[in-house]
Amino acid sequence: MAVYTEIDDHALVDFMAAYDVGEVLSCKGIAEGIENSNFLVTTTSGPFILTLYEKRVDQADLPFFLGYMDHLASRGVPCPVPVKTMDGEVLRVLSKRPAALITFLAGMWPKRPTADHCRGVGEGLATLHMAGEDFDGTRANTLGISAWRKLLTSCEGDADHVRAGLIPRLNDVLDRLESEWPSNLPSGIIHADLFPDNVFFRHGHLSGIIDFYFACADAYAYDIAICLNAWCFEPDGSFNITKARRLLASYQSVRPLNNDEIAHLPILAQGAAMRFLLTRLYDWVNTPTDAFVTPKNPEEYIQKLEFYLAVKGPESYGLDL
Amino acid sequence: MAVYTEIDDHALVDFMAAYDVGEVLSCKGIAEGIENSNFLVTTTSGPFILTLYEKRVDQADLPFFLGYMDHLASRGVPCPVPVKTMDGEVLRVLSKRPAALITFLAGMWPKRPTADHCRGVGEGLATLHMAGEDFDGTRANTLGISAWRKLLTSCEGDADHVRAGLIPRLNDVLDRLESEWPSNLPSGIIHADLFPDNVFFRHGHLSGIIDFYFACADAYAYDIAICLNAWCFEPDGSFNITKARRLLASYQSVRPLNNDEIAHLPILAQGAAMRFLLTRLYDWVNTPTDAFVTPKNPEEYIQKLEFYLAVKGPESYGLDL
Repeated sequence: MAVYTEIDDHALVDFMAAYDVGEVLSCKGIAEGIENSNFLVTTTSGPFILTLYEKRVDQADLPFFLGYMDHLASRGVPCPVPVKTMDGEVLRVLSKRPAALITFLAGMWPKRPTADHCRGVGEGLATLHMAGEDFDGTRANTLGISAWRKLLTSCEGDADHVRAGLIPRLNDVLDRLESEWPSNLPSGIIHADLFPDNVFFRHGHLSGIIDFYFACADAYAYDIAICLNAWCFEPDGSFNITKARRLLASYQSVRPLNNDEIAHLPILAQGAAMRFLLTRLYDWVNTPTDAFVTPKNPEEYIQKLEFYLAVKGPESYGLDL
Repeated sequence: MAVYTEIDDHALVDFMAAYDVGEVLSCKGIAEGIENSNFLVTTTSGPFILTLYEKRVDQADLPFFLGYMDHLASRGVPCPVPVKTMDGEVLRVLSKRPAALITFLAGMWPKRPTADHCRGVGEGLATLHMAGEDFDGTRANTLGISAWRKLLTSCEGDADHVRAGLIPRLNDVLDRLESEWPSNLPSGIIHADLFPDNVFFRHGHLSGIIDFYFACADAYAYDIAICLNAWCFEPDGSFNITKARRLLASYQSVRPLNNDEIAHLPILAQGAAMRFLLTRLYDWVNTPTDAFVTPKNPEEYIQKLEFYLAVKGPESYGLDL
């Protein structure tokens, strides 16, 4: 949860006057999102989300993120779109931060994802991949495999507090990931952070996908691997193969995987676990104890990585070559 | 800012089905309030506030708070009202917490209060006092003068980290407050926490008063003294007599003060500063550094108390005996 920046009420009214959205009725900071400050602004024409981009988001990437959301929405993906001012602007400044007003999506994210939710997210992810095919923009994956070694090295001094012997173990795994990582899988713009709190459901159906601030160019199957990590483990750490099957089958009902993608899914899943393990580990050892936002414990992803390392092949996810 | 308790999406839908408010469209935790967990729930009939009462609020007091809000609203005070279920209930249970759905008020609280805001709050406070006159319920002020000695004693071991010599100084002041504190001023139910973040304005006019969870029986003039503390100091710590005059004059345009109240306003202002100083000091020395909510620095109220101690009489607030 996070609201890092406060908005002056007069400044807000001035800011909102540039949009054709009626009068501001209220503005409440939302306790969601850890990268930016988000506010639910109610106007006489309805609710909107106001996002102030904090320093962890590179300002140069904002036109890409906002353009991508706009593109996806125009192709029917249920995602928020940046609202244009009457002068046609989408990216502005408020409280000395880059700021955008975006549309509000109905729905709630599942606190306890079920196999039905996994079916929804599989189909939603494939739809998102297909819809992005003709999007012009691109952005490198700054948290992709080429970034992991540096992240790992920077944690070296402190990671043994998390688990003894963690660093040598991760170095071994990363050596192998780097040597075996596939480079010719079907690629395009991926969401790269499609966790349950970024997917809204309504009446059991996916009604919204949000938070595109990690979107980047990478292998589509890597995005699936992220979802396996994010959606298919139970709270006790066990892998739920029914959920994985449901997610993969529904993905393939929209965009079938080729054999190369299927064969590489195990290593991609290991890589996805490594990516979230490393960013959590980095935040864990680098966040002061009196910080505003409590970092997430990396232990969960150590367990997930160990699970994937023990997996024999794609059949463990309910896929056949 | 605070959301202490998470709400399961299915549990929320079940909970909301008891009210005649349409279908739930979304539920977002609000980064406001430090005592309870608050959510903005949007339904097909509009926005509502859902409050889960956390342990700092005594459950036995909840019927009083909710009944008081209902009473005030029925007398025209712009405050939220608890929504009744179709079975007539207002206080229920969600996520193992006492929970109430309350109406949503338009308006924004002033981040930089002006003299005009102070006029609005003075009139609003007097209106609230008058409207509560015929309310049946009552509740002792658990943070009134009889509670201060115990709070101060409990801080003794640690308060010198805040300011050297603070405890002896406060003990001296409290001795005098206890011996001179008035006991026969006009009394009734007071808000007891009418800070800027609890007062909404729209088009420059007061549009809402919220957060009645400190309301209690006490002297009306003590509620004014709290407002002098909360509204009339500048960010640099200086006292703005124009704001005080405006607040007091607009209060008296609705409910004139008697000479006894005016004469005692200086000691009541000292007491109000002492009350917020002591609770902040208590939280400051008792909150672990890794806590979820950052306590407010008591230093601000040490300065306010010292200002009031140097004041000669009610004329310093623009009042004449």
